[in-house]
Amino acid sequence: MNSWATWGQDLHLDLSERRARGLGLRAALEDALREAAAGASLAPGTRLPSSRVLAADLGIARNTVAEAYAQLAAEGWLTSRQGSGTTVADRAVRRGGSAPAPRSPDAALRYDLRAGRPDLDLFPHAEWLAATRRALASAPRDALGYSDPRGRIELRQALADYLGRVRGVRTDPERLLLTSGYAQGLSLLSAELHARDGSARGGRPLAVEAYGLAPHRAVITAAGPATVPLPVDEDGARTDLLARSGAGAVLLTPAHQFPTGALLHPARRAAAVDWARETGGLVIEDDYDGEFRYDRQAVGAMQALDPERVVYAGSASKSLAPGLRLGWLALPVALVEPMRARKAAADGQSGVLEQLALAELIRSGGYDRQVRRARLHYRRRRDRVAALLAERAPEVRVTGISAGLHAVLRLPDGLPGGLPAEEVLVERAYRRGLGLEALDSFRHPLTAPDGPDALPPSLVIGFGTPPDRAFGRGLEVLGGLLGGE
Amino acid sequence: MNSWATWGQDLHLDLSERRARGLGLRAALEDALREAAAGASLAPGTRLPSSRVLAADLGIARNTVAEAYAQLAAEGWLTSRQGSGTTVADRAVRRGGSAPAPRSPDAALRYDLRAGRPDLDLFPHAEWLAATRRALASAPRDALGYSDPRGRIELRQALADYLGRVRGVRTDPERLLLTSGYAQGLSLLSAELHARDGSARGGRPLAVEAYGLAPHRAVITAAGPATVPLPVDEDGARTDLLARSGAGAVLLTPAHQFPTGALLHPARRAAAVDWARETGGLVIEDDYDGEFRYDRQAVGAMQALDPERVVYAGSASKSLAPGLRLGWLALPVALVEPMRARKAAADGQSGVLEQLALAELIRSGGYDRQVRRARLHYRRRRDRVAALLAERAPEVRVTGISAGLHAVLRLPDGLPGGLPAEEVLVERAYRRGLGLEALDSFRHPLTAPDGPDALPPSLVIGFGTPPDRAFGRGLEVLGGLLGGE
Repeated sequence: MNSWATWGQDLHLDLSERRARGLGLRAALEDALREAAAGASLAPGTRLPSSRVLAADLGIARNTVAEAYAQLAAEGWLTSRQGSGTTVADRAVRRGGSAPAPRSPDAALRYDLRAGRPDLDLFPHAEWLAATRRALASAPRDALGYSDPRGRIELRQALADYLGRVRGVRTDPERLLLTSGYAQGLSLLSAELHARDGSARGGRPLAVEAYGLAPHRAVITAAGPATVPLPVDEDGARTDLLARSGAGAVLLTPAHQFPTGALLHPARRAAAVDWARETGGLVIEDDYDGEFRYDRQAVGAMQALDPERVVYAGSASKSLAPGLRLGWLALPVALVEPMRARKAAADGQSGVLEQLALAELIRSGGYDRQVRRARLHYRRRRDRVAALLAERAPEVRVTGISAGLHAVLRLPDGLPGGLPAEEVLVERAYRRGLGLEALDSFRHPLTAPDGPDALPPSLVIGFGTPPDRAFGRGLEVLGGLLGGE
Repeated sequence: MNSWATWGQDLHLDLSERRARGLGLRAALEDALREAAAGASLAPGTRLPSSRVLAADLGIARNTVAEAYAQLAAEGWLTSRQGSGTTVADRAVRRGGSAPAPRSPDAALRYDLRAGRPDLDLFPHAEWLAATRRALASAPRDALGYSDPRGRIELRQALADYLGRVRGVRTDPERLLLTSGYAQGLSLLSAELHARDGSARGGRPLAVEAYGLAPHRAVITAAGPATVPLPVDEDGARTDLLARSGAGAVLLTPAHQFPTGALLHPARRAAAVDWARETGGLVIEDDYDGEFRYDRQAVGAMQALDPERVVYAGSASKSLAPGLRLGWLALPVALVEPMRARKAAADGQSGVLEQLALAELIRSGGYDRQVRRARLHYRRRRDRVAALLAERAPEVRVTGISAGLHAVLRLPDGLPGGLPAEEVLVERAYRRGLGLEALDSFRHPLTAPDGPDALPPSLVIGFGTPPDRAFGRGLEVLGGLLGGE
């Protein structure tokens, strides 16, 4: 049983982790408080900080905290009294003996238009099982044993060919490391960079885009390095500012900046590589949706500019499913052995069945077919989003949709009778069962919300996640919301 | 291109990692040198330390180094000249551009009797595919998306039931964490213990058994804590000495000490739990082969003595296959949230397809059948080993075979015309294509080879790894070796 002081220290990390599981900010906060009040973490009677203080601590909108408090008071977990603030209610539920069960994250979300997740209905069950069967039948006897920490040679060979052909990546099987999703690759790289920089002396920070995924920033900092933000504009990250960032490495999303959707300008690509060459720095290229470009030929991987200075990172999380945990890094030669050793120490190797199955799927052409099928599917959804917004909310500017699974809706400002602030829209959407996010919720904490590097009020909506039927209805709700209904 | 001084620093870690992939000590050393000489790590002309100096640096037998040098000189990688020592030969092979490809680890081993790996022919291909198909068909739509970092609830539920029924583990689904094999669980636990102890102040060491797997010790130290050895005798680890070890936690193999095969005595179990309670310490129970006991009822998990002080760790690596990377931890309540956060930061979650398939296999009874089938198979092999040794080398004492997949052969000492030293036997076996290991190769570096805690000369042979035909022929070779042929 802890006081707020003890428990609250970890709340920031706890929220990052919940958001990594797909919760919106307010839902994450509500769940964290609910668990703490229901379980053993916060004693009945514990006094919570005011919504103003907690909002400042967490760097989030006060309104979000106030609404979370109100929701939990309505549910009976908290007690709010005028003058005495908010306290944990006096009812002992599930105390001790077992950890509390978290609420299902999407319980209240009927239409999930949050970015970052694919349509799982596209996962090719039958093809995957068939590929697994064929791969198992032809694999050598020891394939299911312990093997190279970098992963099975069958998949490294197939991926080297595929990435070269489709994304222009310059690599070979010896330089590929297969990881448990992109997250593990980022974690191992961050730890390696931190160790090289001399972790005992504090290390150098890793530069990240000023708008990006907080869970990825959390992965980096958990592995050692601090993060510093690089401003983002319509040409992508301001890599021209790398020299003054003090960073030893930079994480970029060149093909489709997440979440703004910008394509990194060729001059910015060159600037990043030049910086890396001059300073001995490293560029990490997160190619999270590089295969999903609609309106022209896919832009090749930046890694090809200098394979010894750029680590290419990809995964099957968008093309197949995140739950497969299939990620890969194309490494500079100098990083192969250190990263192999880190992978060995972290978990020995990744699971081989998925590796063998994906290798077989790539070799047989099934993976190309799957990517084409998914691209067509998402392109159609994107067109529906664009059409709906043109009709229902013509004053909203839609950007970032020449590629990927999400769009950025720039809200008009200063219009008479215009839309309310983004945070209000998000909360209003949530109450209608519609999940979406404010662009501001992706902002790096060191980028001031009212400073020169802050981006204008916008919503980020993903069109990958919902099943088809919910997608159509979700769009209707979105149209109503933006149309002022 | 590095000097020996730079490259040699990492050789110890490199060897550990290669041994983790199943190489014998000499083979690991040969491979490391071969890669360095073939690749960019050691320049032609680089002078290597003498076999005496390198052997002392690495804490291994001088003979092993000398034979590795001789082998690589025979292959043309090294040059040995009387008076000027051993240098890297002047031939530029595969220089630059790509990392060198390691030799296949088992190229020279026709009969692999090294411990620690199961017979992969037992993996139930058809049943596994069928379970995957059924699991995919009945899984909720979002199962393949991002979910709880602890792993799928289906498998946590099935495992909580199974572990309680078969191993007497006291846990529930909320306290189970699914990891990428046992190795990841050990790594995350070690990091958590290190952080709790105050890593900035150096932390407390983790006590391990004086004889055990070097790769596991490497996983622990890579995550932070140093290791200190606990002596091992016929009653298992000397947990009565924990109080004076200075350790904050201890890693034990209570059901079947690896590699001696001892069963941890009830008094020793109680001593470990008492120590943990009194000092706030933690016991990690590595139940790596707890389901494979032959001569009487399986011994229940030690975790049941105090689920808040003992972490139970298991995996499907012996019962199914290591390549599945299916491991699990049954955690004390206080460790659930910190470990969930560490898992989230390490790789988000483990792959869900294997989780769903194993859950289905357990629920359907297929997993029980698989374990029974494997137990019968290994028991027959064990009986063949015992019969062979009784006939061909009656002076060799066989221990540790009432359970598990390996045996310890205590070599007679002082016999006239007796067997040569264990290291010589291992090298001689290797030359005949037979892989086995000296008990001494499992010794903790802080346990003196000639001190009071050193165990008598013995061989460790595994009877899990080879396919059936190679197993029979391997036994013949073993019989010849021990029979003095």
